[in-house]
Amino acid sequence: MSPADHRPIGVFDSGVGGLTVLRALMARLPGERTVYLGDTARLPYGTKSADVVTRYSVRSAELLLKQDIKLLVVACNTASAVALPALTQRLSIPVLGVIEPGARAAVARTRNGRVGVIGTQGTVRSGAYQRALEAARPGVTVLARACPLFVPLAEEGWTSGDVPKLAAKRYLAELSSAGVDTLVLGCTHYPLLRGVIAEAVGPDVALVDSAEATAEVVASLLAGRGELGQSADPEHRYFLTDLPEQFIDVAARFLGQRMQSVEQVDIS
Amino acid sequence: MSPADHRPIGVFDSGVGGLTVLRALMARLPGERTVYLGDTARLPYGTKSADVVTRYSVRSAELLLKQDIKLLVVACNTASAVALPALTQRLSIPVLGVIEPGARAAVARTRNGRVGVIGTQGTVRSGAYQRALEAARPGVTVLARACPLFVPLAEEGWTSGDVPKLAAKRYLAELSSAGVDTLVLGCTHYPLLRGVIAEAVGPDVALVDSAEATAEVVASLLAGRGELGQSADPEHRYFLTDLPEQFIDVAARFLGQRMQSVEQVDIS
Repeated sequence: MSPADHRPIGVFDSGVGGLTVLRALMARLPGERTVYLGDTARLPYGTKSADVVTRYSVRSAELLLKQDIKLLVVACNTASAVALPALTQRLSIPVLGVIEPGARAAVARTRNGRVGVIGTQGTVRSGAYQRALEAARPGVTVLARACPLFVPLAEEGWTSGDVPKLAAKRYLAELSSAGVDTLVLGCTHYPLLRGVIAEAVGPDVALVDSAEATAEVVASLLAGRGELGQSADPEHRYFLTDLPEQFIDVAARFLGQRMQSVEQVDIS
Repeated sequence: MSPADHRPIGVFDSGVGGLTVLRALMARLPGERTVYLGDTARLPYGTKSADVVTRYSVRSAELLLKQDIKLLVVACNTASAVALPALTQRLSIPVLGVIEPGARAAVARTRNGRVGVIGTQGTVRSGAYQRALEAARPGVTVLARACPLFVPLAEEGWTSGDVPKLAAKRYLAELSSAGVDTLVLGCTHYPLLRGVIAEAVGPDVALVDSAEATAEVVASLLAGRGELGQSADPEHRYFLTDLPEQFIDVAARFLGQRMQSVEQVDIS
C-alpha cells in the first residue's frame, strides 16, 4: 500500500450546486481532505460567454492551487463544457469535469442505446452531454430536455410533494414515452430531486447521477496515481466569493450537513 | 389641448420582466412611442451589489437618452430600489421606478391596513416595498413573501395548470391567513401569473400590479407636463445587450405580442 497523500482535493462551482459533487466525493472517499470554492459573487455562469467562464474558472483554479490541491474537480456543468481545455493546459495536476464521467456511466448502463439527459437550458443548449455521449459510444440516441424549474425547486427545498412531482411528470413525460432506459441528471442541483424524478420516469429507467459518476472516476484516478488520502477525520474547507443571506442554510441541504469554516475571498 | 410630444418614453430592465411594464404603458398610452432596453448580457441584477447595479443603470439610461426620450421608466425592481437617486441626479427628464407607484396604489386600495407584498428574494430582502408602503401610509402593516418559483414559471410559460396553482397556494397560504386585503405583485414577472395568484388568495384580496400602477403615474405625469404623445401608429424599438436563443419567444409572452425591430447593442 502506498503512503497516504494528505493534499486536499479541490472542487469549484459558481454556487451551491457543486456541493452535491463534493458530497458524493466525501461519501466515496471519506479519508480525503477537500477545499471547495463557490464563485457566488459571479453566479450564474450559465448565461455568460465561454471566454468569461474560462477566465473565472482559471481564477478559481489559481485560488485552489494555493491550497496545494492534488486534483481539481470542475463541479459546474457550464465550466466543464467550456473551460476544461484551458484548465488542463495550465495545471500540472489532473483536472476533471462532471460531464464526461456522467456520459461514460450512462453508456455503460443503457441496454437499448437510448439515453435521456436533463439539465439547465444552458447545458442542454451547449450540446456538451450530447457530444460526450456520442464520443463515449458512437451511434447512441440522445434525447435532451431542459428543466428550468428544477434549480429553484432544489434551492427552495421543495424536493417532495405535489409541486415537484407534477413538474417532474410534465418535464419527463416525453422522455419516458420516447423509451429511454437511462437518464442522466446533468445538473448538479438535480440529485436533490432524485426521488420525484425516479417516480416520474418509473423503475425501468436507470438514473445516472453525474456527481456520483465523477466521484467514482476521482477514486480510480487517485488510486491509480497512488495519491489516495487516509485521514481519520479529514478537514473540509469552504471558500465563497460572496456570502448571500440564507446561503448557509441552502448549502446545508445540498451538502447534507452544515459547512464548517466558511471563508469569504475576493478573486476578482 | 397642448401640441403632441412625439419623443418616446424610455424603459429599461435587466431582461424580459420589464416588458410587462412596457405592455401596461402601451395599453394605457396607445399614442406613445417607446424605446426598451433589456440589459440581457448582465442579468440578473438581483444578485449584484448596489454600486454595480447603479453603474449599469446609468449606462442604460445614457443609451436611452441618445434616443431623445422624454421620460425614463426603471422597469426593474432591483434598479428601482437602488439606482433612482443616481439617475434622478444625472438626468434632466423625469425618472420613475416601479416600487413607489405600486406602494401608493396599494395603500389607496387597502381598507384594513394590512398589505401583502410578493417578489423575488432580492426585492423582499431589500425592504424597498416595505419602506415605500410605510412612507406612503405610516403605520400600515406589511407582510412580505419571496416566491422564487414564480420567475421560472413565468419564463417557462407555465402560467396555468396544476404546477403554478399549487405553487401559488403554497406561497400565499400564510399571507391569506394573516388577513391581508391587498397584495402587491412586486416583481415584473408576476403579472403573467395573475390568474393563479388571484385564485390562491381569493376574491376578497385586491391585487395591485406595479406595472399598471406605474403606467398610471406615467400618464398623469406626461399629461401634467403637456408632453403626451398622439401618434396613430407609434413606433416601438427594442435594444438588447445580448440576444439569447428563445428570448424572442419568451419576450412575446411578456409583451403580449412579438417585438418589432430588435437591435443588439454593446453598452459595457
